[in-house]
Amino acid sequence: MALAVAAAGRVLLRAGSRLGRREAVDGARRFANKRVLVEAEAAAGVAVMKFKNPPVNSLSLEFLTEFVISLEKLENDKTFRGVILTSDRPGIFSAGLDLTEMCGRNPAHYTEYWKAVQELWLRLYMSNLILVSAINGASPAGGCLMALTSDYRIMAENPKYTIGLNETLLGIVAPFWFKDTFVNTIGHRAAERALQLGMLFPPAEALKLGLVDEVVPEDQVQSKARSVMAQWLAIPDHARQLTKSMMRKAIADNLIKQREADIQNFVSFVSRDSIQKSLHMYLEKLKQKKG
Amino acid sequence: MALAVAAAGRVLLRAGSRLGRREAVDGARRFANKRVLVEAEAAAGVAVMKFKNPPVNSLSLEFLTEFVISLEKLENDKTFRGVILTSDRPGIFSAGLDLTEMCGRNPAHYTEYWKAVQELWLRLYMSNLILVSAINGASPAGGCLMALTSDYRIMAENPKYTIGLNETLLGIVAPFWFKDTFVNTIGHRAAERALQLGMLFPPAEALKLGLVDEVVPEDQVQSKARSVMAQWLAIPDHARQLTKSMMRKAIADNLIKQREADIQNFVSFVSRDSIQKSLHMYLEKLKQKKG
Amino acid sequence: MALAVAAAGRVLLRAGSRLGRREAVDGARRFANKRVLVEAEAAAGVAVMKFKNPPVNSLSLEFLTEFVISLEKLENDKTFRGVILTSDRPGIFSAGLDLTEMCGRNPAHYTEYWKAVQELWLRLYMSNLILVSAINGASPAGGCLMALTSDYRIMAENPKYTIGLNETLLGIVAPFWFKDTFVNTIGHRAAERALQLGMLFPPAEALKLGLVDEVVPEDQVQSKARSVMAQWLAIPDHARQLTKSMMRKAIADNLIKQREADIQNFVSFVSRDSIQKSLHMYLEKLKQKKG
Repeated sequence: MALAVAAAGRVLLRAGSRLGRREAVDGARRFANKRVLVEAEAAAGVAVMKFKNPPVNSLSLEFLTEFVISLEKLENDKTFRGVILTSDRPGIFSAGLDLTEMCGRNPAHYTEYWKAVQELWLRLYMSNLILVSAINGASPAGGCLMALTSDYRIMAENPKYTIGLNETLLGIVAPFWFKDTFVNTIGHRAAERALQLGMLFPPAEALKLGLVDEVVPEDQVQSKARSVMAQWLAIPDHARQLTKSMMRKAIADNLIKQREADIQNFVSFVSRDSIQKSLHMYLEKLKQKKG
Repeated sequence: MALAVAAAGRVLLRAGSRLGRREAVDGARRFANKRVLVEAEAAAGVAVMKFKNPPVNSLSLEFLTEFVISLEKLENDKTFRGVILTSDRPGIFSAGLDLTEMCGRNPAHYTEYWKAVQELWLRLYMSNLILVSAINGASPAGGCLMALTSDYRIMAENPKYTIGLNETLLGIVAPFWFKDTFVNTIGHRAAERALQLGMLFPPAEALKLGLVDEVVPEDQVQSKARSVMAQWLAIPDHARQLTKSMMRKAIADNLIKQREADIQNFVSFVSRDSIQKSLHMYLEKLKQKKG
Repeated sequence: MALAVAAAGRVLLRAGSRLGRREAVDGARRFANKRVLVEAEAAAGVAVMKFKNPPVNSLSLEFLTEFVISLEKLENDKTFRGVILTSDRPGIFSAGLDLTEMCGRNPAHYTEYWKAVQELWLRLYMSNLILVSAINGASPAGGCLMALTSDYRIMAENPKYTIGLNETLLGIVAPFWFKDTFVNTIGHRAAERALQLGMLFPPAEALKLGLVDEVVPEDQVQSKARSVMAQWLAIPDHARQLTKSMMRKAIADNLIKQREADIQNFVSFVSRDSIQKSLHMYLEKLKQKKG
C-alpha cells in the first residue's frame, strides 16, 4: 500500500510544483500557504494545521492540493510527531466537499477532483503522525470525514455545531470508504441509521455515539488538544505507528485496490442529469440563503 | 445479487400462482390474503403488513410464501415507499420458524422450507422499501430475525414481551446469516454471549443492548411507527436505497454465494436423529402446555 | 482448522512427555503440576485452573506447555464441560508474556516460544469447554489475552488491579490476533485507541468498556464464577459449541492460515537490536524496582 500511496503522492507533488505553491519549510514558525496555515510548535514536536478557506473551509481542489502537500512536508520532517487539525475560522470546522467542483464541470475535472479527495483520506487515515482534531465548528460530510481520520476528536460544546455524514440529504451517497471509516468509529448499526438519514449530531449526542471522544467548553478546545497530544506523544512512535497501521490497513487497502473503479463510479454518478440537477438546486438554495 | 434474488423470487411467485393465492392489488385498502393482512395507506406511501397466522404467527411455509409475494407486490408498486411490519395479534409478534415444518418431514420438504426462510431474509434485508417494525408482542428466534432486518425497531413497553435469538435453548444453532445480522445490530461481543446462551431480552434490556431502537407504551407502538416512518420518508429514496445497499450487500452476498451449501447443511442437520428427537420433545412439551 | 490445531497439539504433547511432566488424570481432585493447579469439581462438571508461576504468573515456555497439556486433558475428558481460569496468587492474574523468553535468546528459542503462545491462544479461543475467567488480580498484556478468550469475565473490584493490552508502552506491538480478539470484544474504535496508547483499565472502566462482563467484591469472585458457570452449563453443549465456533472460527483461521509467517515476523522483530535493547532496559528497570 505504501507504494501506491507514495506514487499518487508524487503526482500531487508535481501538480503542486507546477502551481508554484510548494515552498521549502522555513526555519520559522509558519509555512506560507493560502488555504492551510501551518503553525509549528517545533519544541513540542507538534504542528497545528488551520483550515482557512473562506467562507466555509470547503474542500476545494486547491485546498485539497495544498493540504496534502503541507501534510506530506510534516510527515517527512522528523521534527514533527503530531498534528492538530483545526479551523482558523471558529464556527466552521469544514463544510466538506466543494459542490462547485462537482457541478457543471467535465468528466476530466470530476476525475481530478475525486482523486484528490481519495488522496486526502488515504494520507490522513494512514498518517504516521498523531492526528488530533480540535473541532471548533460545524463539521458535516467531508468535514466529518477529516475528523474521523484523526486519532482523537475533541469538539467544542456549542449545540449549534453539528457533525455527521449528511450526504443523503443532498441526494448523494457517501463513498464506501467514508462508510468504512464511519462504521469503524461508531459501529455498524449506528452507522447504518445515521448514514441513511443523513443525521447531523450536536456535540452531546456525538459524544454519546462515540463520533467524538470528548466535548469541552469552546475556549478550551485548543488547550485540550495540546494536553491530549502530550498523552499520545508519551508512546514510543515506532510501536504506535505499527499498531495504528495494523488497525487501519485493511480499510485503506480496500480503496487502494479499487481506486480507479471508485473514480469511474463517482464520475458517472455525478455526471447524471438527475444528480447535476439536484446539486444545482442545492447550490441555488445556498446562494439565496446568503443573499 | 439482485439477479439471484429475482430468480428465486420467480420460483416463489409460480408456487403462489399454483396455489391460487395471488390476487391483483385492488384499488381498495386491503389485499386479500389469509396469513398476511396488507393495509395500504396509499396517500402516505406506506403499507402495513400485519402477521395473522394463529396461534403464534409462526413462519410456516404457507406464511413465508404469502409474505414474500405480498412484499414483492409492494416493492414493485411505486405507490409504496415504506412498510410497517406488525402483528394482527398483539401479544405475539412472531414465534419464529415453524418447528412442525422441521420435524417428521422428508428432505425435499426441509429443502423447500429452508429456501423459503432464506428468501424471506434476503427480501427483507435487501428491501428497497423503508421497513419499520412495530413489535407489539413476543419476538423470539425467527420473529427477532424479521425485526432485525428492519430499518428501525419500536417495541411495546411490556416486560412480558421478550426478543432475541434463543435457538440454543432448543438444541439447534442459528444459521450464520442470522448471526451476521445480529452482530451488525448489537456488535460481536454482545452477540457472542446472547447467541450462546439463547438469551431473550425484555424491552428495557433490548433497548440498552441496541436490539431495538425505541420502547414506547403499548398503545403508542403503531402511532410511533408512523411518525418514525415520516422521518425516513423525508430522505430522497434513491440516495437512501444506495446507502442501505452499501451497508448490507456484503452480508447478503455471503448467503447468496453459499445458498445451496447452506440448504444442504440445514437439511443434514435437521435430519439427524438427535435433532429430530429434541425437536419432537420440544413440540410435545408445547402441546402439553396448551392441553 | 481442527486438524491444524490437533497436529500442533501433538507436538506439544510429545514435548510434554519428554519433559516427563505428563501425568495421568488421577481419580482424585487435583492434577499434579508445578505451574498450573487443576482442581476438579467433577460432580459439577467443572475444573478450576489456577495459575501458580511465581512471582507474577508470567507466561513462560514451561507454563505455556503445562497449561496447554492440562487444558487438553480437560477438553478430552467427558467429565468436564466448563473451566474457571483464575490465579492461585490473588493480586496478580497473569503479567503476560515472559520477557526473559524474548530477550538474549536465539532465533530457535524465539520460534519455539512464539509457537507456544500461538498454541495457547488457539486452544483457549476455540475451546469446546465453557471458559469463565475469575480475574483476581492485575491482568496486563498476555494476561488480558487469556481473559479475552473466555466466554465470560468476572473481575475483582479492586482499583489497584488493571487490565488491558499495554504492549506499546514496552515499545512492542500486539500481534494481529491479540488485536482481532480485542476488537471483537470492545469494538474497533475503543480497541484502536486503547492499543495505541497501551491503556490499562481499572475494573470500573474495564466494565464500562465491555472488557470485562462483571465486577464483584474481591471475596466474591470465585463464587460468582461458579454461579455464572451454572448458567452456561444449562445450555445444551452441542448447540453452544457450534454457536461458539461459528462466532470465532474466522478469527482463529486468520492465524492458522499464516501461522508460520506470524512466527517469522515475531522472530525477526524481536531479534532487532533496538527491540532487544528496549526489552533489556525494561527488565533492568523491573529488577531495580524489586531490589
